[in-house]
Amino acid sequence: MMKKYATYGMVGAGLNSFIGNVHRVAAGFDGLASLASGCFSRNEERNRACGEFYKLDPERVYGDFQEMAKKEGAREDGIDFVVISAPNNVHYETAKVFLENGIHVLCEKPLCFEVEEAEELKKIAAEKGLLFCVNYSYSGNNMVKEARELIQSGQIGEVIDVNAEYLQEYLVDDIGKGDQTMNRLSSWRKDPEIAGISNCVGDIGTHIENTVAYMTGLRVKRVAAKLDYFGQPLDLNANMLVEFDNGAHGVFCSSQVCVGHMNGLVTRIFGTEGSIEWHEEEPNVLYVTKKGQPMQIYHRGMAYVSGRSAEMNRLPAGHPEGLYEAFANIYKVWIGAVLKKQNGETLSETDLDFPDLDDGIEGVRFIHAAVKSSQEDSAWTEL
Amino acid sequence: MMKKYATYGMVGAGLNSFIGNVHRVAAGFDGLASLASGCFSRNEERNRACGEFYKLDPERVYGDFQEMAKKEGAREDGIDFVVISAPNNVHYETAKVFLENGIHVLCEKPLCFEVEEAEELKKIAAEKGLLFCVNYSYSGNNMVKEARELIQSGQIGEVIDVNAEYLQEYLVDDIGKGDQTMNRLSSWRKDPEIAGISNCVGDIGTHIENTVAYMTGLRVKRVAAKLDYFGQPLDLNANMLVEFDNGAHGVFCSSQVCVGHMNGLVTRIFGTEGSIEWHEEEPNVLYVTKKGQPMQIYHRGMAYVSGRSAEMNRLPAGHPEGLYEAFANIYKVWIGAVLKKQNGETLSETDLDFPDLDDGIEGVRFIHAAVKSSQEDSAWTEL
Amino acid sequence: MMKKYATYGMVGAGLNSFIGNVHRVAAGFDGLASLASGCFSRNEERNRACGEFYKLDPERVYGDFQEMAKKEGAREDGIDFVVISAPNNVHYETAKVFLENGIHVLCEKPLCFEVEEAEELKKIAAEKGLLFCVNYSYSGNNMVKEARELIQSGQIGEVIDVNAEYLQEYLVDDIGKGDQTMNRLSSWRKDPEIAGISNCVGDIGTHIENTVAYMTGLRVKRVAAKLDYFGQPLDLNANMLVEFDNGAHGVFCSSQVCVGHMNGLVTRIFGTEGSIEWHEEEPNVLYVTKKGQPMQIYHRGMAYVSGRSAEMNRLPAGHPEGLYEAFANIYKVWIGAVLKKQNGETLSETDLDFPDLDDGIEGVRFIHAAVKSSQEDSAWTEL
Amino acid sequence: MMKKYATYGMVGAGLNSFIGNVHRVAAGFDGLASLASGCFSRNEERNRACGEFYKLDPERVYGDFQEMAKKEGAREDGIDFVVISAPNNVHYETAKVFLENGIHVLCEKPLCFEVEEAEELKKIAAEKGLLFCVNYSYSGNNMVKEARELIQSGQIGEVIDVNAEYLQEYLVDDIGKGDQTMNRLSSWRKDPEIAGISNCVGDIGTHIENTVAYMTGLRVKRVAAKLDYFGQPLDLNANMLVEFDNGAHGVFCSSQVCVGHMNGLVTRIFGTEGSIEWHEEEPNVLYVTKKGQPMQIYHRGMAYVSGRSAEMNRLPAGHPEGLYEAFANIYKVWIGAVLKKQNGETLSETDLDFPDLDDGIEGVRFIHAAVKSSQEDSAWTEL
Repeated sequence: MMKKYATYGMVGAGLNSFIGNVHRVAAGFDGLASLASGCFSRNEERNRACGEFYKLDPERVYGDFQEMAKKEGAREDGIDFVVISAPNNVHYETAKVFLENGIHVLCEKPLCFEVEEAEELKKIAAEKGLLFCVNYSYSGNNMVKEARELIQSGQIGEVIDVNAEYLQEYLVDDIGKGDQTMNRLSSWRKDPEIAGISNCVGDIGTHIENTVAYMTGLRVKRVAAKLDYFGQPLDLNANMLVEFDNGAHGVFCSSQVCVGHMNGLVTRIFGTEGSIEWHEEEPNVLYVTKKGQPMQIYHRGMAYVSGRSAEMNRLPAGHPEGLYEAFANIYKVWIGAVLKKQNGETLSETDLDFPDLDDGIEGVRFIHAAVKSSQEDSAWTEL
Repeated sequence: MMKKYATYGMVGAGLNSFIGNVHRVAAGFDGLASLASGCFSRNEERNRACGEFYKLDPERVYGDFQEMAKKEGAREDGIDFVVISAPNNVHYETAKVFLENGIHVLCEKPLCFEVEEAEELKKIAAEKGLLFCVNYSYSGNNMVKEARELIQSGQIGEVIDVNAEYLQEYLVDDIGKGDQTMNRLSSWRKDPEIAGISNCVGDIGTHIENTVAYMTGLRVKRVAAKLDYFGQPLDLNANMLVEFDNGAHGVFCSSQVCVGHMNGLVTRIFGTEGSIEWHEEEPNVLYVTKKGQPMQIYHRGMAYVSGRSAEMNRLPAGHPEGLYEAFANIYKVWIGAVLKKQNGETLSETDLDFPDLDDGIEGVRFIHAAVKSSQEDSAWTEL
Repeated sequence: MMKKYATYGMVGAGLNSFIGNVHRVAAGFDGLASLASGCFSRNEERNRACGEFYKLDPERVYGDFQEMAKKEGAREDGIDFVVISAPNNVHYETAKVFLENGIHVLCEKPLCFEVEEAEELKKIAAEKGLLFCVNYSYSGNNMVKEARELIQSGQIGEVIDVNAEYLQEYLVDDIGKGDQTMNRLSSWRKDPEIAGISNCVGDIGTHIENTVAYMTGLRVKRVAAKLDYFGQPLDLNANMLVEFDNGAHGVFCSSQVCVGHMNGLVTRIFGTEGSIEWHEEEPNVLYVTKKGQPMQIYHRGMAYVSGRSAEMNRLPAGHPEGLYEAFANIYKVWIGAVLKKQNGETLSETDLDFPDLDDGIEGVRFIHAAVKSSQEDSAWTEL
Repeated sequence: MMKKYATYGMVGAGLNSFIGNVHRVAAGFDGLASLASGCFSRNEERNRACGEFYKLDPERVYGDFQEMAKKEGAREDGIDFVVISAPNNVHYETAKVFLENGIHVLCEKPLCFEVEEAEELKKIAAEKGLLFCVNYSYSGNNMVKEARELIQSGQIGEVIDVNAEYLQEYLVDDIGKGDQTMNRLSSWRKDPEIAGISNCVGDIGTHIENTVAYMTGLRVKRVAAKLDYFGQPLDLNANMLVEFDNGAHGVFCSSQVCVGHMNGLVTRIFGTEGSIEWHEEEPNVLYVTKKGQPMQIYHRGMAYVSGRSAEMNRLPAGHPEGLYEAFANIYKVWIGAVLKKQNGETLSETDLDFPDLDDGIEGVRFIHAAVKSSQEDSAWTEL
């Protein structure tokens, strides 16, 4: 019998985790997947409380993710996929063990610390015939998909310049403070053991790279980067020149110390025939300009958008969709693909319209190249 | 034992209903309520399909809402509340029968056709000690709550003028077309038997009235309205002068034929000391100006917002919340109140921070006054 | 010999007059007119100082405007036109005497106090074959002209609704203060002897009326107005329903007590096929939407604008033109017309593209109708 | 006797020159300077026509700028200053000969081709005791001055990042066209003999450098640049990392091929305590954010602006000032300084608030560094 609904488990994502809750709401948004298992916290009490809140079978709430992978992999009614929303430093080993136990994986970004690890995961997934999503969630935004459709169908001609940024202000108080962390959110993010070799580029710069790649189909070939540390062990600010595989140049700027910006991911793609601009804080609109013509403000949900945008639409035009819906779009495609896979069906390119291991690998390469370039006084560094 | 979770049923809101799906996602957003029963469609097949999609007990999927009210009211594990998301003309009788069977009611707006019906519902709810929410959903927006906090704590002084509008373009093709409806969405909305005496004022004008009342605490005392019908049986456009109970004046403009606007609910409240402006299409920000000072752009989620705004917050500043989250906020407060009520607890004013029967009654009065004023060449008409 | 340059004189507009300086810069902007005479102030010293600053022949600096009209009218090299930039209460008599002495007149708005006076001026000008401009300066904005071209060529279909406003905050401190004027600018504006029967409608509401009329070609047929006085002798705030001669309705809101607005003239014109929106504070752009299409942002100076907009253009697209340039455009057309008239040439409709006595008369009628309607509890009042 | 008015001459700036007309209007804006001489065109007829249009004494309209410098320098009533608005390649020799003849110079940017030339001009001006303005006109904008006041008084703390751009689209059609110039404006700008070693950086990139330097007081120490030529002899697009003398980093992006942008000079200055953002296309506002606070929109002309902004103000808040007024502000300060100098008065720092030879020299260094860096694969290059 064909599966119509999927079940999933979570590693990390306890009750107090902002991003964990977003995952759960998003996974259940379309009524196609339900939470069945979890290893939410190393703290036993918190782990159990989370299981209870979600009314899980206590047997399927595990204190150890290795045990969870094995047992869920062995159960007949075991989870169809696992969501990994734990600190960066455990992504690799967690993903690996679930793959080894035959379970599809959706993992938060960045995928892992080293390119070799990323490629190993890719190898295992291929051998096992498993799906793997790396949660570059901004590609789930309806108007990001619309931008992709417009660009890849040639509406702005050949891409000649990209100007993209991701600016936040929330760590500005950490400047010059050394280890005296003032900001709740920054504690693990600036510990290289947990966060990896980069804070700002790893956390948000990599979203720029992925969102631009998704929109344009271009890959970054090399970067010339300058990271600023302001006395902290990891970077808080990064400006870089980028060169794409088609020869176009541009800049990527990411920062956690730019006052006036909360979550300012902005991508501007310039082509020989037009340009496209998208702001994550106003995700329902897209600024589209054809050469010599007035700028047009595209609204999600209107009849003029592409088939793909219409397909992914949830609300009538003018009723704002936000972050949850972007995540829900990732899950909608992902769960659809998992169900098809579980049912032995063939998957089309559209079925696979979610960020995958290639995106994850590119992200890890990007972080390494940016850090290395900055260490070498901004010398151009290949990914 | 204290209830920690609520169950609910739905009348209307089949699988193809945009607003029905919004209700279901919103009700389940915080994991505090689950769908247990429904009477989704008069069409038997669609009704059953909806029940199956939501994995309901087939016995609790009813073909008749009267039967549903009686049986659910009689079950020990009957639903805690019902959501009425059916056409306007059945709101009254549906709400009434659920109240009579001891079930709390959340009903879409407008509450009903006649003021007398509305007052009867209020009387029954009071007698039975039941809660009743009329879903003026924009009051669920975080920054609308912030506006309310700022205004009611005196930040803009006394309100002296209000300029509010709700503009859409989606019925512009109906102009001069008489009964040859061109637009899918407009069919029942322009049938007076189903929609009531007004289309545009009833559907969206009434949201202006409620959102302004919620923000300011003021009630409209009288209106001088001009409705435009453009050859249709019901109004498509409405401009009106309003007078509030504190003597302030202003204008409310609602339209479904204003090209360039998708869901343009904008409220601007002017006081002796400052002003506040909110746009539904950019719901995460609020424009606040103190007399003689620069305009300030408040962002949801920042440390400077009020306690109420912080309490209702879901995502970090800059990560957009949208329509689903506004609905989810209504449900969060509503479910909290239902659970306290079911558990015999006392409810505070904050517990009751959802639009209630008084709001519903005011909405019905407002629609009647607007239509009557327009019929009398825009004479001022008391609510 | 054909005149290539014009000379002009000024009544009012001393050195400290903001608007007087704008007139002088604008008149000289294109090198086609020079100041030759003036009666700048009743204060002899200030009058002389102004004449000296502008290096005028002392003989042509007059203490009395009647004397000025007679002497300049009699000189062979007398001024071609006079600019009247004095308080409202002297517009009528000043304009009259210059017309009687054969001098073309450019007068600030409002034209005068009474409709009869306005019509008398029209009669004299016609008899004498003189030109008369009433300085409704916003019609000089390039993108207002573009809006007019687009609307009058049918780009937005038939106009069905107009929503226009002119909001300022600068008199908010006068609320409830009676005669204790706190604000420098408001002193003469709230004296009915000098300002006439209305402050807010007369000063800025009338600009809404004229700008909309210029853009659309429609005239207001009747108004239903509510003016707020807040304890002052003249109005500070006005909301009104309007009905146009084509049957369309709309609202005009003018205010000097709306915090957050400096000079917020905004006109939004809605038609059966599209809409157009213009903001005086961002005068170089126009928001144009065709039914069902994305909003387009037109920029002054681009190749896609109309011939008229291109003709009136001064700077490349993106280099902002502002208030001075709008005035300069009025003067460019006006001086061109005066020179043609003085040279005995025939004037085309385009030559006469400046606000004239018919606009001035309409403005006076509009003010009277608004005040009368408000006195009669907002009864619809014909212009 | 003290001079109250100045006279000036022009080199270049014939009747068809857009920027020439801007200069003339701006110089005369405040009634403090009049045009008395010129060498407008190498074409004799056009030269004479321009002189006639401005009613100049024919003797003072010269066919040769060397002759003009000598004769005007020798006349008792000779011009007080000269405005050089001719192609880049003649700036140096023209400026030099006027200085040598004792005449103050206002020269368009870029100042000249080589740093040595620039320093020679500085030496001559110093020896002769003459004033020299290099027309980086954006520093004349009122709100740029306000930004400078706010930043230099410490309102945003120490500058830690700068993100600035100047984007235009008007040369996008030149991409890949080699010498087949399609665009009227681009002809001399892409001829290295006339324009110098850079088109895009030289024309607009240098404005970024100057505007940022003026606002912040910081100087660029080194750049890592990537220029794009798209098959043309000179650059059309430039992205660069910059390092300032206080150690802060940032990016400067200038382009003439970015569709959707007309004259998009945007400067964003980030400090440890706040940030400031200014857009040349909306020059009357400034976006100011203090750490952790809502963004504030400052309007020119309001009471809360600094003394300097108030001093340079022309119109009430909300009435837009544009490019002409920015130029007029440069001239207002410049003419004031020239008059004081001619009258033997001492000049304060505020009297000298115009871009001078040091700015001009910095601009030349900047252009050379950017081109050199790009030639060396974006190696960091000191100015």
